[in-house]
Amino acid sequence: MAGENRTSVTVVGLGSMGRALAEAFLAAGHPTTVWNRTPGRAGPLADQGALHAASIADAVASSGLVVICLTTFEDTRAALEPAARALRGRALVTLNSGSPAGARETAAWATAHGARLLAGAVKNVPSAVGKPDTLLYYSGDKAVFDEHERTLRVLGGDTVHLGEEPDLAALYEMAVGAMLLPALVGFFQGAAAVQARGLRADTMVRFAGKWLDMLKELLPVFAAEIDSGDYGDAASSVNLFLAAAAHDDDLTEETNVDTTWLAPLHDLVRRAAEAGHGEHSISALTEVLRKSPQRA
Amino acid sequence: MAGENRTSVTVVGLGSMGRALAEAFLAAGHPTTVWNRTPGRAGPLADQGALHAASIADAVASSGLVVICLTTFEDTRAALEPAARALRGRALVTLNSGSPAGARETAAWATAHGARLLAGAVKNVPSAVGKPDTLLYYSGDKAVFDEHERTLRVLGGDTVHLGEEPDLAALYEMAVGAMLLPALVGFFQGAAAVQARGLRADTMVRFAGKWLDMLKELLPVFAAEIDSGDYGDAASSVNLFLAAAAHDDDLTEETNVDTTWLAPLHDLVRRAAEAGHGEHSISALTEVLRKSPQRA
Repeated sequence: MAGENRTSVTVVGLGSMGRALAEAFLAAGHPTTVWNRTPGRAGPLADQGALHAASIADAVASSGLVVICLTTFEDTRAALEPAARALRGRALVTLNSGSPAGARETAAWATAHGARLLAGAVKNVPSAVGKPDTLLYYSGDKAVFDEHERTLRVLGGDTVHLGEEPDLAALYEMAVGAMLLPALVGFFQGAAAVQARGLRADTMVRFAGKWLDMLKELLPVFAAEIDSGDYGDAASSVNLFLAAAAHDDDLTEETNVDTTWLAPLHDLVRRAAEAGHGEHSISALTEVLRKSPQRA
Repeated sequence: MAGENRTSVTVVGLGSMGRALAEAFLAAGHPTTVWNRTPGRAGPLADQGALHAASIADAVASSGLVVICLTTFEDTRAALEPAARALRGRALVTLNSGSPAGARETAAWATAHGARLLAGAVKNVPSAVGKPDTLLYYSGDKAVFDEHERTLRVLGGDTVHLGEEPDLAALYEMAVGAMLLPALVGFFQGAAAVQARGLRADTMVRFAGKWLDMLKELLPVFAAEIDSGDYGDAASSVNLFLAAAAHDDDLTEETNVDTTWLAPLHDLVRRAAEAGHGEHSISALTEVLRKSPQRA
């Protein structure tokens, strides 16, 4: 079903996410060229109609739009280096983890080679690629985004351009992603706790899901408090969390779970209370997390 | 609209949550008696039709169903002590934070005074009380639950009995609640990071909400891995999180945010990798969190 009027795309980097991206382009009828350092990974995609480029330079030269999905910005630049001459005039879309500084360096590098960079972020699982709700955000060259938005939307229906600064996607990915590991470890700790009682971890999934729903509903409230700097109208106060923290030793005793990772979190709560935020919203912890006071 | 056929209820403890509970009972037409150590808090409820008891003993004696919403189990027992004689034969429902051990002590105490205890947990915000989706779970005397389920459902449409053991609600509340503070601090850190760039925290709310949705979808997968002990089919591997951890120093430099609270989390990830879980699912962290291996 390769459509004549579909943009040609090259996908570089065929890990599980890169493969999912290439498959989504193929399924949507885009002529798709693929390349991977270990060539074996391209085989199944070639069976689905992808063109397997013989070199990275050929891969880049094959399409006006080059999507590269490696682990880091350093990997990305290193992989593209042998194809640097072929980059001139092309739209380069990076989809990897990395710091805002890495995104800025990569933008400077791409510009030096005459490419136009759109730096995106995708931390979804590969199975989410192509779904209408899947979020992918990009920052950098807005003209590239406008030109290829319809093609990029093949990867996820919720496709957003954050701004011209090339590091914004990396910044938001770090900012938003900061919830993930802590929330997961909290869930794993809970799972170990119910298991220590002889109960199955899946018995807490429904309840944990409700908590996440509740948390999601509270985020706009907390964001408004943080943006205004007014923490006075507290639905959940710092002191409430301070009282709850006292129970964690009980959890350790009761459930055979190591809760020492929570100590610095409780220290933040304690410092917020000591700084006069006791009766303020728990979102006042934001003030304690800043290394130096916010510039007005 | 007090209904003749509605169960009489006493609500003890009129903090913001206790007031919300009393208001929900009043709104549903239950004859409602209220008591608080500081009597001023009962005034607005009396205006809505509540009977303001003169003493805790009178309050307990007024209804077959007594709901008490204080901060801890210790507070709960201390508040009820002067009314201990009046407790005989009554259904006592506790709604407070606390450890499983506290719930067991309170159950023994209540039984010694001839009361039948249902120990519940509610960590929602007061504004959620009475909504069809609001979750409240209870453990302990199942006969009390069956008898009063319809009345308790006034407080939240998603009302669940977890089992006869009186400490199960406290156990699940600790287990499920273990996600809350870590996830919040992650969000606050992200908010401080975008603010350091001159952007508003509310610009990340939509994206953070998507992450919570994604996390919610992953919970059953992780729970199944933890229950089976089979971490081999990893959508998100320990090594992936280990690589991401390396970027946190960047975050500190870039955004003026103190990320030291993440160090023990990264240590858990590192220990999981060292224990041979590198290519396993991140849910294998559960094994590292256990202080001693799980008994089969």
